[in-house]
Amino acid sequence: MADKRFFKVAGPFTLGQLAEMTGSVLSDPAAASKSVVDVATLQEASSEKIGFLDNRKYADVFRHTKAGAVFVKPELASGAPSGTVCLTHKNPYKAYAIAAQAFYPVEAPRDSRAPTAVIDSSAIIGKDCTIEHGVVIGRDVKIGNRCRIQAHTVIRDGVEIGDDADIGPNVYIGHSIIGSKARIHPGAVIGRQGFGFALDPAGYIAVPQLGRVIIGDDVEVGANTTVDRGAGPDTEIGQGTRIDNLVQIAHNVKIGKYCVIVAQTGISGSTHLADYVMTGGQAGLAGHLHIGQGAKIGAQAGIMRDVPAGEEVLGSPALPIKQFMRQFALLGQLAAKKGNDK
Amino acid sequence: MADKRFFKVAGPFTLGQLAEMTGSVLSDPAAASKSVVDVATLQEASSEKIGFLDNRKYADVFRHTKAGAVFVKPELASGAPSGTVCLTHKNPYKAYAIAAQAFYPVEAPRDSRAPTAVIDSSAIIGKDCTIEHGVVIGRDVKIGNRCRIQAHTVIRDGVEIGDDADIGPNVYIGHSIIGSKARIHPGAVIGRQGFGFALDPAGYIAVPQLGRVIIGDDVEVGANTTVDRGAGPDTEIGQGTRIDNLVQIAHNVKIGKYCVIVAQTGISGSTHLADYVMTGGQAGLAGHLHIGQGAKIGAQAGIMRDVPAGEEVLGSPALPIKQFMRQFALLGQLAAKKGNDK
Amino acid sequence: MADKRFFKVAGPFTLGQLAEMTGSVLSDPAAASKSVVDVATLQEASSEKIGFLDNRKYADVFRHTKAGAVFVKPELASGAPSGTVCLTHKNPYKAYAIAAQAFYPVEAPRDSRAPTAVIDSSAIIGKDCTIEHGVVIGRDVKIGNRCRIQAHTVIRDGVEIGDDADIGPNVYIGHSIIGSKARIHPGAVIGRQGFGFALDPAGYIAVPQLGRVIIGDDVEVGANTTVDRGAGPDTEIGQGTRIDNLVQIAHNVKIGKYCVIVAQTGISGSTHLADYVMTGGQAGLAGHLHIGQGAKIGAQAGIMRDVPAGEEVLGSPALPIKQFMRQFALLGQLAAKKGNDK
Repeated sequence: MADKRFFKVAGPFTLGQLAEMTGSVLSDPAAASKSVVDVATLQEASSEKIGFLDNRKYADVFRHTKAGAVFVKPELASGAPSGTVCLTHKNPYKAYAIAAQAFYPVEAPRDSRAPTAVIDSSAIIGKDCTIEHGVVIGRDVKIGNRCRIQAHTVIRDGVEIGDDADIGPNVYIGHSIIGSKARIHPGAVIGRQGFGFALDPAGYIAVPQLGRVIIGDDVEVGANTTVDRGAGPDTEIGQGTRIDNLVQIAHNVKIGKYCVIVAQTGISGSTHLADYVMTGGQAGLAGHLHIGQGAKIGAQAGIMRDVPAGEEVLGSPALPIKQFMRQFALLGQLAAKKGNDK
Repeated sequence: MADKRFFKVAGPFTLGQLAEMTGSVLSDPAAASKSVVDVATLQEASSEKIGFLDNRKYADVFRHTKAGAVFVKPELASGAPSGTVCLTHKNPYKAYAIAAQAFYPVEAPRDSRAPTAVIDSSAIIGKDCTIEHGVVIGRDVKIGNRCRIQAHTVIRDGVEIGDDADIGPNVYIGHSIIGSKARIHPGAVIGRQGFGFALDPAGYIAVPQLGRVIIGDDVEVGANTTVDRGAGPDTEIGQGTRIDNLVQIAHNVKIGKYCVIVAQTGISGSTHLADYVMTGGQAGLAGHLHIGQGAKIGAQAGIMRDVPAGEEVLGSPALPIKQFMRQFALLGQLAAKKGNDK
Repeated sequence: MADKRFFKVAGPFTLGQLAEMTGSVLSDPAAASKSVVDVATLQEASSEKIGFLDNRKYADVFRHTKAGAVFVKPELASGAPSGTVCLTHKNPYKAYAIAAQAFYPVEAPRDSRAPTAVIDSSAIIGKDCTIEHGVVIGRDVKIGNRCRIQAHTVIRDGVEIGDDADIGPNVYIGHSIIGSKARIHPGAVIGRQGFGFALDPAGYIAVPQLGRVIIGDDVEVGANTTVDRGAGPDTEIGQGTRIDNLVQIAHNVKIGKYCVIVAQTGISGSTHLADYVMTGGQAGLAGHLHIGQGAKIGAQAGIMRDVPAGEEVLGSPALPIKQFMRQFALLGQLAAKKGNDK
């Protein structure tokens, strides 16, 4: 399925191997020695490929798949067509992810430095790092082992980056300490001075932004996303957090561990998110708020108050989701009633 | 009008020539030999320039214009001041566009390669291409004729781009097949891996993103816009579609032909837009939806359900526009009534 | 407090010096000779540092601060703990900004041109400018004195930039005239052709964009923000205006002096903002509107009509803020009543 111009496939793997590496259970133990050559979607899979069923919307597609094998929840396995082996797992998408990583392993960076890269002599760069064309690395920068710094990226004085980082092209990083396994996508801007100035009728007065950006291990920052450095305190992003494209994170924001921040979300200054918070696309959070652990901020929600742990909110200004849906439905009923009354 | 430091004007053209090239009708056939030296707005035009009236908001400006000639709808031509020749056309803005292209033709790229560009020896680059300073072109890349690849743009292994493309500076393109006449604006990021991972309490597991981005002919992608590659299926953008700045297009999205996607719109994964769909600024579309042909998504609308062909929607969650406006008005009336009752 | 890897601190300064440079009044004149070595937040400050209290939310923190001195409003000074000297000022954040600038002065650019910069021989560059790695400067560009043009930035033919500008890395500037003291952050795209085309069933027809971007003195443009050039008239940004990250400014927009445009705002074509307008994050403004002086556009507001001077609006479509809050409250009451009626 994957275009050979862009992807190199490993394998084949037997279903037994895939069951073992993913922690799945084979619906037919006799199929353990059967092998598959690739992953595929349910629609496109043929008998030598393995797919997955995660979203119930695709249950009908599942019933007609030609896939040789499918990762699926135990309770949905009975819908498989004959000829398709089920690998049951409570989280089939996770099992698929592990299998796909086996078929398409990430290439390790080779030790290379483009002659056009400008690397300050005081910078310390680890083993087996690829430094591409035009990269600029400033004074006292420290970069770990097995990192890839892609073309035209600018890393300013004093920045530290851990091991196994993949920093995309045309990225800016300044005033930041970044953990290991970072994946920073193209065009991201991390650590510019925040939007800080004192209001004054005679013109705004810039407030020196004296904090940093501190990013934990295994964090992803999307393309063209901007993360401002702290004004005094640091801007912090916790371990394992995933940030999508075109997100704005203002100064002094603190984001906990394993949060998911979907594209075009904006988080205003000094707002703190606890762990496992999720924000939908285009959500906006005002400044100086606290968002509790595991809270779910809906797409386009406008957050003007603290959100308790575990709460799901929607609307602008946001309300608990049930309350929002009730109000939304009520307004529709009132308008329909008024239309009928005429 | 146009600043000579930035624009070089061609011409002059006679009104007869302009009528012919645009398919307009001269209100005064005797004026065919009159010539104009430039295009201009109605406010700024003098007697040797040609303007246009498209938006009725400017009808009053039209009545007082000093323009020598104006493209205008037949039914509005009677409002022209004496001394202004009308070139009537049912789509005056289109006629103006064609005339302006004649006055300001785009310069063809010259055959040149900056010595600082890094072009893999396996890449195939067509005739008369300009490859600017610092460009990086990977293995097996194919680029058509008469393309301009601007400074510091990075084009990864295997990418194909058709003829007559203009790729702005600081752009990233990977895992993509792009048609002819593409105009990709500065800072756009096309084909990065999508936001794909399996949720897991022990940390998110990256799902290899094995699809591509397929872009048809004559597509425009705005500045700092991000288009993620498919997760398995491709992300697709149909012929003639126009995408504005700072738009997010997630993995597996399919956009039809001649769609218009206004700035800061976000389209979530696996949502499909048929042809001629328009989205207003900051519209947000949830994932796995179908938007029918010719649908109009209003600015800031939040789309949580399929939208039928031809429907115009507004609000978040979005409703058919008349229904939305009715509810919006009703709430205003109720609040006013309550205020009066006090 | 500030990380020595990233920031170099000046000082120490006596409280007398700080009172004088900021126009503050010492609560205890005898403390004028006491000196402090740094600025700090109220939480983190120790006895040799000076903080500020601006937001009443932090009044309790103020009562327990260990700061040696604090900028504070006269009416709040009585809350200071013993041992903390107050420097009273009606705008403590402004006083803090001036003090912080004294502790952390911006380094002047040194006269240097990276050998990899490509500067057209017709370009005129002032004294004491730093031109970094990979910068591209086109024909007839004029750049003032003491400017810093950071790595990989592309400045197209004819652009003019005043004195003391700081242009970040990976920026694009074309068709623009920019005043002095500009601060353009990484990845900003200024002056690309606007989103202009004539609708036509046979495909869209590009309308040449013949205007410029005119930016006044002392303007800040955020990271990855996009400012399109005019279609015929210019796009204009007035003196002293502050624009945050990921903002979209379309063609022909005119923004007055001392406006504040918060992150992810989008302003559609030909809309005019008078002076001192503020927009909250993710605000969206339709095209061809007029926003009066000092108007406040709330976060996520959707502006579909003109806004009078001084008005504060919220909601999408936006309403005067009191009206919006009344309607929002009323809908909540109706839903609660209906819930109780059941």
